[in-house]
Amino acid sequence: MYTIGLDYGTLSGRALLVDVRTGAEVATAVYDYPHAVMDEVLLPSGKRLPPEYALQHPQDYLDVMYHTIPAILKGIDPAQVIGIGIDFTASTPMPTLKDGTPLCAIDGYRDEPHAYVKLWKHHAAQPYADRINAVARQRGESWLKRYGGKYSSEWFFSKLLQILEEAPGVYDAFDTFIEAADWVIWQLTGVLTRNTCTAGYKMLVQDGDYPSSEYFGALNPKFQTVIGTKVGREFAALGSKAGGLTAAMAAKLGLPAGIAVAVANVDAHVTAPAVHATEPGIMVMIMGTSTCHMISGSDLREVGGMCGVVDGGIVPNLFGYEAGQSAVGDIFAWFVDNAVPPEYQAAAQAAGINIHDYLEREAAKQKVGEHGLLALDWWNGNRSTLVDTELSGLLVGMTLLTRAPDIYRALIEATAYGTREIIEAFEANGVQVNTLIAAGGLPEKNALLRQIYADVTGRPFKLSGSAQAPALGSAIHAAVAAGAYPNIHAASEAMGKLKDMVVTPIPENQAVYDQLYADYKTLYDTFGRGANDVMKRLKKIRNAARGES
Amino acid sequence: MYTIGLDYGTLSGRALLVDVRTGAEVATAVYDYPHAVMDEVLLPSGKRLPPEYALQHPQDYLDVMYHTIPAILKGIDPAQVIGIGIDFTASTPMPTLKDGTPLCAIDGYRDEPHAYVKLWKHHAAQPYADRINAVARQRGESWLKRYGGKYSSEWFFSKLLQILEEAPGVYDAFDTFIEAADWVIWQLTGVLTRNTCTAGYKMLVQDGDYPSSEYFGALNPKFQTVIGTKVGREFAALGSKAGGLTAAMAAKLGLPAGIAVAVANVDAHVTAPAVHATEPGIMVMIMGTSTCHMISGSDLREVGGMCGVVDGGIVPNLFGYEAGQSAVGDIFAWFVDNAVPPEYQAAAQAAGINIHDYLEREAAKQKVGEHGLLALDWWNGNRSTLVDTELSGLLVGMTLLTRAPDIYRALIEATAYGTREIIEAFEANGVQVNTLIAAGGLPEKNALLRQIYADVTGRPFKLSGSAQAPALGSAIHAAVAAGAYPNIHAASEAMGKLKDMVVTPIPENQAVYDQLYADYKTLYDTFGRGANDVMKRLKKIRNAARGES
Repeated sequence: MYTIGLDYGTLSGRALLVDVRTGAEVATAVYDYPHAVMDEVLLPSGKRLPPEYALQHPQDYLDVMYHTIPAILKGIDPAQVIGIGIDFTASTPMPTLKDGTPLCAIDGYRDEPHAYVKLWKHHAAQPYADRINAVARQRGESWLKRYGGKYSSEWFFSKLLQILEEAPGVYDAFDTFIEAADWVIWQLTGVLTRNTCTAGYKMLVQDGDYPSSEYFGALNPKFQTVIGTKVGREFAALGSKAGGLTAAMAAKLGLPAGIAVAVANVDAHVTAPAVHATEPGIMVMIMGTSTCHMISGSDLREVGGMCGVVDGGIVPNLFGYEAGQSAVGDIFAWFVDNAVPPEYQAAAQAAGINIHDYLEREAAKQKVGEHGLLALDWWNGNRSTLVDTELSGLLVGMTLLTRAPDIYRALIEATAYGTREIIEAFEANGVQVNTLIAAGGLPEKNALLRQIYADVTGRPFKLSGSAQAPALGSAIHAAVAAGAYPNIHAASEAMGKLKDMVVTPIPENQAVYDQLYADYKTLYDTFGRGANDVMKRLKKIRNAARGES
Repeated sequence: MYTIGLDYGTLSGRALLVDVRTGAEVATAVYDYPHAVMDEVLLPSGKRLPPEYALQHPQDYLDVMYHTIPAILKGIDPAQVIGIGIDFTASTPMPTLKDGTPLCAIDGYRDEPHAYVKLWKHHAAQPYADRINAVARQRGESWLKRYGGKYSSEWFFSKLLQILEEAPGVYDAFDTFIEAADWVIWQLTGVLTRNTCTAGYKMLVQDGDYPSSEYFGALNPKFQTVIGTKVGREFAALGSKAGGLTAAMAAKLGLPAGIAVAVANVDAHVTAPAVHATEPGIMVMIMGTSTCHMISGSDLREVGGMCGVVDGGIVPNLFGYEAGQSAVGDIFAWFVDNAVPPEYQAAAQAAGINIHDYLEREAAKQKVGEHGLLALDWWNGNRSTLVDTELSGLLVGMTLLTRAPDIYRALIEATAYGTREIIEAFEANGVQVNTLIAAGGLPEKNALLRQIYADVTGRPFKLSGSAQAPALGSAIHAAVAAGAYPNIHAASEAMGKLKDMVVTPIPENQAVYDQLYADYKTLYDTFGRGANDVMKRLKKIRNAARGES
């Protein structure tokens, strides 16, 4: 018996066929979104988009299924497939009619940017996020603390409020504003659900409901009725069955009609069951261009600067905590592209390895602290305990003998210090972090990074056993929805995977990193908490020089 | 009529033949020191040297004259040469016998490192400098303030005390410890003089004499008699005649016997008359790997962190002030060698210009502040107002969009802020700085740097008219010593040269740089004055990791 996990990323979707008993990954297929990310022009019209826009076309999500699912079914009997689960980027919401038809598919709206999906990285709603935060603070809304004190411009209501204020006619024209994840489930089952993960982390659902209509009305009088008119309360728990696959969809996909379709989930969060992280104390890190940290806890705690805490946000009956670092792999890529001289590029080529591997190899020869450098990992701001996009990078300790591998290592260390800062914030507020489990290409490839994270945090560091952890997690959810396992814990136990390897902290290294981290912390507080706002002044001067506000 | 200026650098010596009436440079020749800088092994024996040593062979200085002077005389009648002047690196002292024979030329001492010249950058005498400072502070020696509160390991008595303590037998074996500059003059004239420039800046001569014998005795009982036994009081003013060229030397060099030989000088200081900087208010900057700042003032002031103030240290009858930045061109070279990716190197090659010129061109397209970066220019410590070699570089403001020309420009700006810090320290203590005049390849080649220095400091920026300013300055001294002019001012007026170009500050740029400098100043004080000693802790951790003390 098999389930299918579908993982919707930023540029493509992946389907994974998984053996329900063992978790073995039987077949996989990827399909690139034909419209990709529309951030300069709207396709196909070519209409120019304003700055900071990032849109998608919902048809691409269906096309992913139409192309990948038949492909992965080739070697098996489709009757053996008992369920489908999906995960998605978030918050990636879209407007639809009552029957689920995307507004952008309606004549008269095909050329209207606000009729399309607003991808997670659509950042044009910042003024609305600012208002959401300001009004919440003003009114003393209790839920604000559950989001580390700050609601993001990337999230659901920031984007919906943008439509209301910038395109009131568009706002009036649709019936439902919904996460694309839930929309895909709706297309598969005919049932409209809103998964508790995005509902909690992105849609402000806490203790079972949205903020009050008075609060929404204080944002904009017309927003007072947003819940009920545009957004419903169709909450559905993770791992539960949203509905059965419709006959029409079954026919298109080559699957049995009526099989279980699990409630949708967010890509990062669904990774937890894929790596046996369904109990408290295990921090899952999805490490790529940025890092997303997830951990479950038995109790509700409020942690400054975390992205959110949601009851059942990762697995039912535990509080799911999320935090993040806004640039990790992106910093290393920046360094390699912009600050490594030709001799290293040539040496890497001569050694037949890529430049990252070469720099890692050189940096790994050093003892801890030998390079004499320390960095603040804020090249893309700080979205962990400081939640401040105006912060920027800092590097200190350079001498005339500083070389590229020194800086490369210092940058890896800086991101590890950033993770330690998050761990310490959790633990200071009563959320234990005992073990780190990482997924993603970055920790997979970089042994030095794994050891540095173990040494800096003092925690054992493990690796996902699957290279497609989110898709595997979705297949696990599908198995639970199909009744193959009683709950996510049991399914995770059977189907989840870790690499047979634990990186343990080396005490001598830890001792030196404790000293270096103390200095990181001092710089962190000096430049991040107002003692020296030079980073903000530099951005202000920069913006003035560029003629930006 | 002509004079000859001889400029002794770190790796070679240059002779310049100059027309006494116009300052026209008629001929020049360079000779590389055969022994170069001995910092790993002693030549020719191959004996291994301890760390931080930097020695030279005095015969090389004579060989420079033997090779270059006949070469520059080729096109003229040597009878037209009326004088010779020389300038030298400092403090670069050496031990000799009573008759001037270098100790290293005596059997039994040829293989003894302490018998050789200790070049300015011999840094192995740091413990002795530390003691010189500690004892001076303890005894409240009034002269200490004249050196910004710190005597350097590079200077005369640090090196002499090192010999006394580490090689007492060698100390006993020589009669005179003398700056190589003064030794060369001694060889030319048979007259032992000690020029007031090195005597003042490097040998602690203030108000006409050395510190007391009690002070020297407190350093080491045997040092109590150092003045009188090893070091004399043969002080001679700049621009005066040390003596006439001996018949023997005249024969070897192809010059008339008896012509005037001027008192020696330091290479940086002798640049002042070459660029018309013989009056108060004009700061001369010798810009290369590092920058040396010189300015004359009418009054004696004590400025924290300056290298020294000496009565008649640059021109007679004015107080000569010296300050410095320990890395300038070195930082740009470090950046180009270690942090510029291949695409810029390739683009420079395609444009047919060198990488510095290419980065300058790209950086020059930016408005002030547009890169959003700020740096502390301490890649080689700080030897200006902080006098602290344990400091290191800092760069703040990096984003994922930061590019190599951004950082290049930020580094140039940082060195300009460093110069502004020096100017402000001088002015706060009553030494006016109205104009900047730069000499050296760096300001000659880099127009962006010139404008940045003008904008950051708010001072007009001028350029030396000679590419061999120190040698020209020495030729000017020679002309005064020969009686062709009544004093250095008059000779400088006639023979000195500036480029026909004044870079004036642009008010809009100045306004933005004032804001950026305020932040530089805050970082300067935070990291340089004890509020955050992270740089020192990083070096300590680095040294421990390397197994160094």
